Amino acid sequence: MRFDQTHRSTKVKKKKKKQRKSEVEIKPRKLRIMEVAKVLHMNGGVGDASYANNSFVQQKLICLTKPLREEAIKSLYCGTLPRRLAMADLGCSSGQHALIVVSDFIKTVEKLCLELNHKSPEYKVFFNDLPGNDFNNIFKSLDSFKQKLCEEMESGIGPCYFFGAPGSFYGRIFSNQSVHFIHSSYSLQWLSKVPECIDNNKSNIYLGRTSPSNVVRAYYEQYQRDFSLFLKCRAEELVEGGRMILTIMGRRSDDPSSKDGCYIWEIMATALNDMVLQGIIKEEQLDTFNIPFYTPSPSEVKLEVLKEGSFAINCLEVSVVHWSAWDEWSVLDFESESGYNLTQSMRAVAESMLVSHFGEAIIDELFSRYQEILADRMSKEKTKFINVTILLTRKP
Amino acid sequence: MRFDQTHRSTKVKKKKKKQRKSEVEIKPRKLRIMEVAKVLHMNGGVGDASYANNSFVQQKLICLTKPLREEAIKSLYCGTLPRRLAMADLGCSSGQHALIVVSDFIKTVEKLCLELNHKSPEYKVFFNDLPGNDFNNIFKSLDSFKQKLCEEMESGIGPCYFFGAPGSFYGRIFSNQSVHFIHSSYSLQWLSKVPECIDNNKSNIYLGRTSPSNVVRAYYEQYQRDFSLFLKCRAEELVEGGRMILTIMGRRSDDPSSKDGCYIWEIMATALNDMVLQGIIKEEQLDTFNIPFYTPSPSEVKLEVLKEGSFAINCLEVSVVHWSAWDEWSVLDFESESGYNLTQSMRAVAESMLVSHFGEAIIDELFSRYQEILADRMSKEKTKFINVTILLTRKP
Repeated sequence: MRFDQTHRSTKVKKKKKKQRKSEVEIKPRKLRIMEVAKVLHMNGGVGDASYANNSFVQQKLICLTKPLREEAIKSLYCGTLPRRLAMADLGCSSGQHALIVVSDFIKTVEKLCLELNHKSPEYKVFFNDLPGNDFNNIFKSLDSFKQKLCEEMESGIGPCYFFGAPGSFYGRIFSNQSVHFIHSSYSLQWLSKVPECIDNNKSNIYLGRTSPSNVVRAYYEQYQRDFSLFLKCRAEELVEGGRMILTIMGRRSDDPSSKDGCYIWEIMATALNDMVLQGIIKEEQLDTFNIPFYTPSPSEVKLEVLKEGSFAINCLEVSVVHWSAWDEWSVLDFESESGYNLTQSMRAVAESMLVSHFGEAIIDELFSRYQEILADRMSKEKTKFINVTILLTRKP
Repeated sequence: MRFDQTHRSTKVKKKKKKQRKSEVEIKPRKLRIMEVAKVLHMNGGVGDASYANNSFVQQKLICLTKPLREEAIKSLYCGTLPRRLAMADLGCSSGQHALIVVSDFIKTVEKLCLELNHKSPEYKVFFNDLPGNDFNNIFKSLDSFKQKLCEEMESGIGPCYFFGAPGSFYGRIFSNQSVHFIHSSYSLQWLSKVPECIDNNKSNIYLGRTSPSNVVRAYYEQYQRDFSLFLKCRAEELVEGGRMILTIMGRRSDDPSSKDGCYIWEIMATALNDMVLQGIIKEEQLDTFNIPFYTPSPSEVKLEVLKEGSFAINCLEVSVVHWSAWDEWSVLDFESESGYNLTQSMRAVAESMLVSHFGEAIIDELFSRYQEILADRMSKEKTKFINVTILLTRKP
């Protein structure tokens, strides 16, 4: 559900507002089994709070995985010598990083074709995300993207066709054996829904040190169901020998409620709990809010791949991005306060869900508190995100 | 270029406004060769002025062409018995009528499969329009569309995959021989750009009784170039035996500047000329504004198809929609003034272009005058739109 489109009619606006209000009122019960597909989307547009302008870590990760992607594409091409190559970015959101992956893909293939004296193949590129994603934003940048790509590749490139593919990746998106290369970065930590029967996860909004064991189990089981379904669907869509590279926000510890996978949401929970104490948010509202998220360990990722059975594991690695890296990054040409960029990133990601449950009125206040706590923690400890990257080949 | 997204940052908003102002200032010269792809888009969203709520004629036409589409789909299916069927709606815009065509397509095939005791095929559905189109609006309605379709077809339907395909149809959109059925309704009257060298088309914004002969020729030649390129591209994309059904706003007369193809824009020109006389619009601004539009006659359509040579003509017919039909139609549950609905329809279609040339300030005033003139003419004469529909089969 999106509320960021201007309606010329005030009537329509008013109706929407009214609707939103009533939604908030009935949410506390309903959101326990909130389906991500209906609520989650990165902030659209190109404003300060947009995902497009706050997807720094995604861009950084894409740089980190570049050598691995190149290796995968080269062996894919040389192993199959296809005349048509279809690639998909799953959970592309509306930032520029999806285009970086596409650009890398095409350039790698074209360089190979030059080396091998092959004719360029035809490219089909699919951008996938949930239907609430701001696809318009990607589509509008395609013309200049294509132009830039052609300028950079003086020897020319094969014909390229671009498509949006809206839908949850916890279901089929493409027809049987129609895709050669799948990329997904920082999307698979989102579950298809909030696990059921976790009413006793009080004061937490995700797993945390105080989460009861049934909650930890419920989250892990939801992850298992979702990720195995994801693998099954992709196995049907990928051609034999097709490659898939996934980067997931994860953890190193074997304990799902350990700090390295949960800290970023624990801070959000701290801010929300403070607001409950001050009467800004009702306790019941907080108690019924849980994030549909899971940060798996490398061995949990590996286990599901082995259980599903359709893929060979070419590589499984862990990388680290320190939170402080956000402070060094600036697109806005001013030095921001500590924690500002990371807060904006988290806001671009979580705002739609928070608004849907708590209403819009508390959002500015919440993120102001969030940034304060974040800055404090960052000044005292070396906080970081753990990322699990896995490269897979579709078995024959 | 779209200005209907809310940006949270006032800074960004101000920048946009400034940018828009300077764009308007430099437009008069530039717009002569305005490229449709950069400026034209139907109004997005779901508000009163949105295309989604003002595409009545498109819906009416889709009802009119239903028997012809069904016939085409049946002979396509029976002639090729495909396991995978790809259909595309070109110039889908953001209204619901694209979904009606898709629904009709799938239902027709499924009924045939039932009759013939065949297994359902797999469907790929592509929604095409210019990159500035509001694809988000279509994508958000896909889930409920699929649900409704499944409920209506009790015997079940084959797997469906939906894609957005942004880009001008005066160029390639799909890979070679990858589409079985192409539909386009009320889109091909838009040219790829305003014809060049028509500086002397003063006081007109399209062809009109006072248009000089070089202007008439320039419009016709631009139509020929565009439509033959369209046919060439589609011939490459369609499989052998693939069907294409096109409905184009056209005319019956052999004279391109005759009333039946030009009247709707002549009224707009009258409103604009009045505003020039009253000093609201500069004369130079009006003189440099021309609509990238052409309403071909059936024989002009036929000629290009024959010249291009890849298609067999199965059917070529002309239909009529009276302007007064708009007055009888109401989604808003109130009786509107004469000409209101048609004015809103024209606004949904032309606003982006008018704003881009004249600026936003004159728009309300312009359409208020437009409606007044429209109502007057409609009370005095039987005004109507002429539509040319052609059904084609890709030759082997």
